[in-house]
Amino acid sequence: MEKKEGVIPNATAKRIPLYYRYLKMLEESGVGRIKSKEFSKLIQVPSATIRRDFSHFGELGRSGYGYDVGYLLEVFGDILNTKVEKRIALVGVGNLGRALAQYNFKKNENLNIVSAFDNNETVIGTTINDVKIQSMDKLEHVIKKEAITTAILTVPSVNSQEVVDKVVNAGVTAILNFAPGRIKVPDYVKVQYIDLTTELQTLIYLDENFTNAKHIMVDK
Amino acid sequence: MEKKEGVIPNATAKRIPLYYRYLKMLEESGVGRIKSKEFSKLIQVPSATIRRDFSHFGELGRSGYGYDVGYLLEVFGDILNTKVEKRIALVGVGNLGRALAQYNFKKNENLNIVSAFDNNETVIGTTINDVKIQSMDKLEHVIKKEAITTAILTVPSVNSQEVVDKVVNAGVTAILNFAPGRIKVPDYVKVQYIDLTTELQTLIYLDENFTNAKHIMVDK
Repeated sequence: MEKKEGVIPNATAKRIPLYYRYLKMLEESGVGRIKSKEFSKLIQVPSATIRRDFSHFGELGRSGYGYDVGYLLEVFGDILNTKVEKRIALVGVGNLGRALAQYNFKKNENLNIVSAFDNNETVIGTTINDVKIQSMDKLEHVIKKEAITTAILTVPSVNSQEVVDKVVNAGVTAILNFAPGRIKVPDYVKVQYIDLTTELQTLIYLDENFTNAKHIMVDK
Repeated sequence: MEKKEGVIPNATAKRIPLYYRYLKMLEESGVGRIKSKEFSKLIQVPSATIRRDFSHFGELGRSGYGYDVGYLLEVFGDILNTKVEKRIALVGVGNLGRALAQYNFKKNENLNIVSAFDNNETVIGTTINDVKIQSMDKLEHVIKKEAITTAILTVPSVNSQEVVDKVVNAGVTAILNFAPGRIKVPDYVKVQYIDLTTELQTLIYLDENFTNAKHIMVDK
């Protein structure tokens, strides 16, 4: 199958992360192909929109067969995977921060945590995975100097806003935030929240209420 | 406002995690109220469905005002928040596992990691936060004995399936999986995936392509 090159409409491009996420879930569940109508039900986007969007990538789907999940994942993965090295600052080197620094997205050579910051004197000056942990005082200077635009925040909620203001002020436009609770950013800054507690609660809720299909049927 | 007690239709109940997630995002962005039409656009669920769902919780919305985000979060949060203590097994005590054990969802007294497992001899027998790390050989016995039904997996992808089979065999029905890649489970087992790399890629993609609204407008 030939991959089309060309301009993708903005509205389509914005849906790529959504498509990618759900296609990945499907693949993880062992689903190899999907029809636009089924996919529409799953992600709540009209099937005509899905078909139009997918056609931009040379994937037209076959009647009665549907779309190839693996192919679409490859195409969208290529689009999502940043082509240039992305230099990332990590703010907060507690347990979670330390775990992320060790992990350092090693499977993606273009994603690199290149600097880390904390205000804990006992970790400042130490190194994880060749990344030196520096004092919070240095944060703005280093981010500016290194022209870093992406930051991962693993600081306590109570410090979130203060740290956000600092990184944004230094030029960061993309923030991955692990602290629960709201942060304020200017319109041009993108924030992605990862809330581990909510993920776990959702899982347990679904498990407690929808696992045992037999019970639900009997009740009815 | 009075909270209704009563039976919630299954279809509605299944949408609660989705509603909660997006309402939380809205709150995090400083949005205090939202109209069903706007919310519909955001989450791609028909606004009539949203209004019907919300009415089950005594939240009828006011014309021209919309729904109160804080109130709905409170109601849905109560529903999602498990009322009984949930005893959780953690499998894989590398950096991420260690971070999760330290964190241990302390703000939610009902969510408790009570046992941890690893095959690394140097950590077996040690303790994090009063949780003793035990050998993988003990996993099935302990999970059965303690009647644990929820597991968090932070094992390398290559070991995922083997570990999944073990925990499912021991009685686990809810899995929070941090390992990228597909795992196979019986139909009655719920899996929630947290893929940190995809989250970061999505963030950077959106930042690179949609941050600078001015550029997009000029191009057009």
